[in-house]
Formats: sequence, structure tokens, C-alpha cells
Amino acid sequence: MWRRSCGSGWRRAGRTMCCASGPSWTARPAGRWRPSCAAWTWPRSTASSAAPGGTAAGRRRRRRQQGWMRAWSRCRGTCWAAPPATAGWCRAGRAAAQRLRRLQQMAEEQHGTPCHIPWYIMTSGRTMESTKEFFQKHRYFGLKKENVIFFQQGMLPALGFDGKILLEEKGKIAMAPDGNGGLYRALGSHGIMDDMERRGVRSVHVYCVDNILVKVADPRFIGFCLEKGADCGAKVVEKTNPTEPVGVVCRVDGVYQVVEYSEISLGTAQQRGPDGRLLFNAGNIANHYFTTAFLKDVVNIYEPQLQHHVAEKKIPHVDITTGQLVQPEKPNGIKMEKFVFDIFQFSKKFVVYEVLREDEFSPLKNADSQNGKDNPTTARHALMSLHHCWVLNAGGHFVDENGTRIPAIPRLKDANDLPIQCEISPLVSYGGEGLEQLVKDREFRTPLIIDEDGIHELVNNGV
Amino acid sequence: MWRRSCGSGWRRAGRTMCCASGPSWTARPAGRWRPSCAAWTWPRSTASSAAPGGTAAGRRRRRRQQGWMRAWSRCRGTCWAAPPATAGWCRAGRAAAQRLRRLQQMAEEQHGTPCHIPWYIMTSGRTMESTKEFFQKHRYFGLKKENVIFFQQGMLPALGFDGKILLEEKGKIAMAPDGNGGLYRALGSHGIMDDMERRGVRSVHVYCVDNILVKVADPRFIGFCLEKGADCGAKVVEKTNPTEPVGVVCRVDGVYQVVEYSEISLGTAQQRGPDGRLLFNAGNIANHYFTTAFLKDVVNIYEPQLQHHVAEKKIPHVDITTGQLVQPEKPNGIKMEKFVFDIFQFSKKFVVYEVLREDEFSPLKNADSQNGKDNPTTARHALMSLHHCWVLNAGGHFVDENGTRIPAIPRLKDANDLPIQCEISPLVSYGGEGLEQLVKDREFRTPLIIDEDGIHELVNNGV
Repeated sequence: MWRRSCGSGWRRAGRTMCCASGPSWTARPAGRWRPSCAAWTWPRSTASSAAPGGTAAGRRRRRRQQGWMRAWSRCRGTCWAAPPATAGWCRAGRAAAQRLRRLQQMAEEQHGTPCHIPWYIMTSGRTMESTKEFFQKHRYFGLKKENVIFFQQGMLPALGFDGKILLEEKGKIAMAPDGNGGLYRALGSHGIMDDMERRGVRSVHVYCVDNILVKVADPRFIGFCLEKGADCGAKVVEKTNPTEPVGVVCRVDGVYQVVEYSEISLGTAQQRGPDGRLLFNAGNIANHYFTTAFLKDVVNIYEPQLQHHVAEKKIPHVDITTGQLVQPEKPNGIKMEKFVFDIFQFSKKFVVYEVLREDEFSPLKNADSQNGKDNPTTARHALMSLHHCWVLNAGGHFVDENGTRIPAIPRLKDANDLPIQCEISPLVSYGGEGLEQLVKDREFRTPLIIDEDGIHELVNNGV
Repeated sequence: MWRRSCGSGWRRAGRTMCCASGPSWTARPAGRWRPSCAAWTWPRSTASSAAPGGTAAGRRRRRRQQGWMRAWSRCRGTCWAAPPATAGWCRAGRAAAQRLRRLQQMAEEQHGTPCHIPWYIMTSGRTMESTKEFFQKHRYFGLKKENVIFFQQGMLPALGFDGKILLEEKGKIAMAPDGNGGLYRALGSHGIMDDMERRGVRSVHVYCVDNILVKVADPRFIGFCLEKGADCGAKVVEKTNPTEPVGVVCRVDGVYQVVEYSEISLGTAQQRGPDGRLLFNAGNIANHYFTTAFLKDVVNIYEPQLQHHVAEKKIPHVDITTGQLVQPEKPNGIKMEKFVFDIFQFSKKFVVYEVLREDEFSPLKNADSQNGKDNPTTARHALMSLHHCWVLNAGGHFVDENGTRIPAIPRLKDANDLPIQCEISPLVSYGGEGLEQLVKDREFRTPLIIDEDGIHELVNNGV
């Protein structure tokens, strides 16, 4: 039903506007829709009258309005601590920060005025200090300290199946984070909405920290949402296998929502349209757009109406009769969580924007393992594959040890073979743009690194 | 171009006829196309006149005509030897044999006459003896010995880059298998075509041994090819990622062929149609149909016309000046191979039949590794996931240790979690059919095994 009612329109629009490995987005015909970097640099309505080079007051006003927000929700305890994933999480954090810098730079170049994108990072209580230390240690990756704002997710008591609160230790209640939907309560209780208002933020991009390929503050996505007059939007990737564990955006009884994979029957998940595609295929990747006005209503009015989802968990607790700590072997209680996407139902104008998985989604959820899903190795390979495509699409080539050109899709002898080792700093290119001048008609050996200092071919020839 | 000319027709037909996890194939409306089991039991043209219960001569003739062939091409040296993959290869062999038995049984039930499907297995010189021993040890998995025919793939000399033949040792030429397209020369030189003629085989299904989910002699695929009057057909899965290393079936200058992934430019691989799908998306899975007449022409007329493909390899060889054995660190020569799909160009009527990847394709190419592609773990998970779906679609349910029903798409806590452990013997069900009577409205704990002895829930409760 949903596909029929809003399918082809947004699908085509999404496909057209999101082509990361295609030509530079700045090269798009300007007449079709305003480049979305302008959408976050200035509100659409004032952009034409307040052109770069206007009055000093205009520039000040514009600077106030220059803003963006994104929350790192689900920035879990493992984020900076767990050894197997540390490198991956750090890479994701650094990449996001550098993409923001690159976006700021492009906006400045295009509009001739300084641009700052505020970055709001939600952590759990446990990870707040280590996250802050990480950013301090790396000097905020070149962002201004005052534009990186940390705030803390809330906690809720964990309950036994009998509904009674469990104790973590004598005199201490067992607490658990209140889900990524806890974002909305935290935004209110930590004064983040006021901060946004002060900065003149008009639109907000929310994403989950675990996606190494995330296009933070994606100007095309935001431009699309602005053009459609949406107050709320979801970026999705196509779900192609019915049993893939991913929630799908759909309309149920006229209301948009995400149906979690664990809530859908196999028969429904397997349904296909006349074109052979899955009927419910808008895979949710925790990547959303909100207007600040909508977000304010959510925080002030709708958040208390959100239902908690119940998750059965193994909760270590103190046996109150013996005082002994119990480490349960099977679920013994529940944790209560709200979900970030549960507010879609309150949207007056909701849009969905489909992008290509290989361009924008490679989550980091697990340590490396035999069946290799969503782990540091797959995240690294996804990043290298994307950047390899960027170089080829910009007219570059790769050659092997004999100087022979390597095919665009190289032969992998076995699963341990790496893809073409190629990495491009986000400071050089946000989405594949601006590379032609660096790589066109040139041949490279791997590993290839392109960063703000230039092009580095790390040939292991003993020199 | 190719999609435009033959796309939607075959796509729709393929989708319609291949629904492994749907209702039993025997329950399909018979009026639409004759059940394909008949296609291999009797030639289509004689089926209606030679109904079961005809004359004794008719039954004898039909028995002669009962036949099928498939070749295990690329049954490589590692097939039975390499420890990490051994279990996987053995499972693939056993599963294929049992699927053949199940097909024979279904044909017998439907037509009231014995059915035998000859199985031709191509091995390399090195693996011939171990493969035969494997089958002998397992008593041909219940198949009749005389219907399992082994034959050997040819070899060709390996050459240095200077075009000279390399020596493996003093007085011994370095030889390499002549590619999976060596099938055609081997069919002729080992008298296999004569054997087929003697048995009255009319149609042939060729597949690669490494696919754990392969539907050997798939009656739907063969029925489709027969109905379309095709002399040659290819079963494909949709390629969804432009850089996936899979060849695509397409038409080049009016001729059907497989374009290997290493031969396609990134720009071409990334092309999309108006529906957003890849333009060249018919992923080749080494799964083909031939009429025996066509195959005979290939062996006798076309095979010598096939071009060799050149693969650069590291070839250990004797240095003829010093007599020392050289183990090269980089490619030092070439091996020449023919490809099984290179004969598509000679087809008078070629068809393509698309199936769902999750139902029919999970190749076993690598040992287990960090990024986990096409290895024993992924193959095992693919099989269990498919059989899990079969049980759900037949009305069964799974419950956890507390007796609570597990969602159709279960929550996996991390990548080491198994999917629902469920395995159904091919002797019980070839493609999901016939399970309702066993599982409908029943609840199961995992691991669940259904075989010819019944249903086994292997609950680890110490009992």
C-alpha cells in the first residue's frame, strides 16, 4: 500500500539526487534544485535575498543561522572501550568529524562566508568521559570545541519478570540506557533545544555512530527534505533479502513508522511487487532528518506519549534474600527502551529517501568473526571499495606490480584478499567530488592514500 | 540493450516459476505448464500419448528415456582434500545426491514407473580417485552405482610469458586443467555423449559443485526451458552491487554471452535502468541447461572454435639452465582455460531464468575468514536459514528455551549467533514441498532436524 502511494516518486528523486560515486555534486545543474549545502548554510527562504557579500548585519544573521545538529545516538559502552572494535569506532568518529570540516569548507567556498556546523553528540553515562577525552586528545579533529556539544542519554531501572526493580548491588538500582529514542528526553533535559535555537539551527540530521560510510549532514538528503517541505525524513537502503534483520519504513493504517524485523511475519516479509522487488523494502539505517520546529514539538509534546519497547535481557542482580550477585544464564528481566524512529507518526509531511547501500551504509556492530557481518573488516573493506570507485569514476587507474592495469572489479583469489587498498581523506572529498584534478588519467599502485598533504603511494619496495 | 530486448519476459517467468519456499511445486496448476518432473521423465512430445499404465513396450521406451545428466565441473583439487572445506564439500555432494533421489522418488510417485537420473561427474586428474573413493565409501548415497558416471577433465601445458612450455620437473611438462569449458572436450573424448544417447537422455543440467543450495535437475528450470523451446538456458541471480565479483549474462552485438566481472568497466557495471536496478544484473551462477542435441553439436562442431582465456599465474617450474626448482613470487606465466558459458553464442534459442539468491545460491569458495564470504560458515547458515523459512511457510513455529515463540526473523545478538538451527534432509523435501503434514501448527525447539526417520529436536537438557 505504501509503495503504491508514495513509492516511485521518492524513489526516483532519491536515486537521482544521491550518487556518491558519480560526478561531483557541485557539478549538478543548479537550475533543478538548489545545491543542498545552501540548505544548511542558510534557510532556503532567505538564501536568494541574502547572497554572499551582503551587509555586515546580514552576514551576522547568516552566521547565526549556519548550523546543523546531529546526535550520536547509541554511542554505546563498547564504543571507545572494547579492544576489537576500537580502531573502527575511532575511525568512524574521525571520519564524521572530517566530513563536517569538508562540508564547512565547501559551503564557505560557495558562499564566501564562514560556516560552522554544530555537532551534538549523545553518549551514555558510562562513555561520556572517555568520549570527551577522545575528542580532546585529537583536538576535536580540527572542529571548533564550542561546536561539539556532548550530552548524556537517560537511564531507566531494569525490572524482573515480576515487575520489581532489580538491584545491581546492595543499595544500587540496576539501570539501563533508555534506548536511542531516549534522545528526545535528553535533548530537553540538557537544554539542547535551547542551544539550537540560540544558534539559529533550522534543520537537524540524526544518525547512528556505527556507520563508517555515513554522510553527516548530507546536503542532498537535506536539500531533498527541504524541497519537499518535509518536517521529518528517513534515509533508507533497499532490503533485498526477506530475512535480513533490518526494520522497514512503511505506512500502517495511514501512519508512517518503522516495523522492526522481529515484528514482521515471514509471509509479509516475503511479499513482492509486480517488479519482483520486496514490497516492504525501505530498510531503515537510523539516518533521519527533522526540522528544529518538529523536533521541538517532539521534545515538548510528543515524547511523553511514546510507548516503551520491552527487551528481555540477562540482567546481573543481587539476590535480595542471600545478598549474592547472580549472573543469569537466560533472560531474567526486562529493559525498557524508546526508539528514535517512533516519532515518525507525529510528522505532518514525512519523506523517504533511498540511497545505495554500497555508497552509504556499512555498520560496525560486531567484532571480527567467521561469518563476518558488520565487523571492522567489512567496514574497512566497504570504505576502501567506495574510495576505489571514486578514483575510477574520476578517471584514475590502478596498476599491479607489473604495471598492468587492474580491472575495475579486481579478481580476488580468496576471501583473505583485500579489495584495492585506497583511502581518501574526507578532508579531500566528501562524496567523490573534486578528485578529477588529482587522479584523472593517472596510474596508481596500492596502497593509495589521498589526504590534505597530497597523494601517497605506499609501495613496499624496500626504498 | 539486452534488458530491453528480452528483459521483462523472462524475468517475470523466472520469478513466477521459482518459489522454493512457497507452496509445493507439485501443487502448481497443471494447466499452465506441464510439471517439469515430466520433462525429464519423458520427452514433452511423447508424454501425453505415453501415459503411465501404457503398453510394456511403451514403459520400456520411457524407462530408456528417463535420464538426466549433470556435470560437476570445477571439482577442484581442494574439493575433498583441504581440511577447512572438507565438511562443506562433502555436504554439498551428499545434498546433491539426496536431492536426485528425492526427485526420482517424486517422479515415480507421480508417474507410477521407476525413474533414474544419470549423474555425470567431471573431476580433475588429481581428484578422480579420491572422488570415486568418497562415493564408494558412502555407497553412492543410495543412488545406483551405474547411474553415477565419473569422467576426467583435460589438461593443457602452462607457458611462460615468452610462449615457451614450462617444465614441472626434469622431463615433465607443467600442466594445468583446461578450465570448466574443458567439459565439452572431455564429454567427447570419454564417450559421455554416446552414453547419454544410449540412455535416451534428452536434456542436460550442468552446475558447479561448490553451491550448497543447488537444485540439481531443477524440474521448474527445465520445464521452463522446454516450454520455451530453448536449446540452451542459464539460471541467474540478481546482481545488486555494481562491484560484486560475478559475471553477467548479456547480449553483445546480438550474441548472448557471459561478460566476466573482470572484463566490465565500472561505468558499465554502475549503469541503472529507469527502475533503479542495475542494467546488467543477470548474475551468472554456473547453472545451465542444454538439450542433448545442442550439446552434441557443441562437442562435435563448436568446441574447437572456442577461444582460450588466458590467466596469469605463479607457475612453479624448473630453471632449464640450472635445473633448480623455482617458486615464483609473482605471476611468471599463463594457463589457458575455456569457459563453460562460452558456448551460449552458438544457441539458436537462449533463455535466462532468474531465481532468488537466498533460495538457490550459496557457493563454497574459501576457508573461513574474517570477512566471511562464501565459506563453510556462510554456506551452513544459508542452508539453515532456507530450511527455517520452509518450516515457517509450512505453518510450523519455533520457540525459545522459555517456550516463547521466536520471531520469524530472529534477533541475533552478535555475529557469532547462529541463525535458527534447522536442517531438513533432501530425502524429505527437495524445495520446501511436503512439509505441512509434518510441521503445521507445531512448535519446535532448536536444533531441529527432519530426515527420513522423522523429526528430531536435539534439546540439550542433559537427558
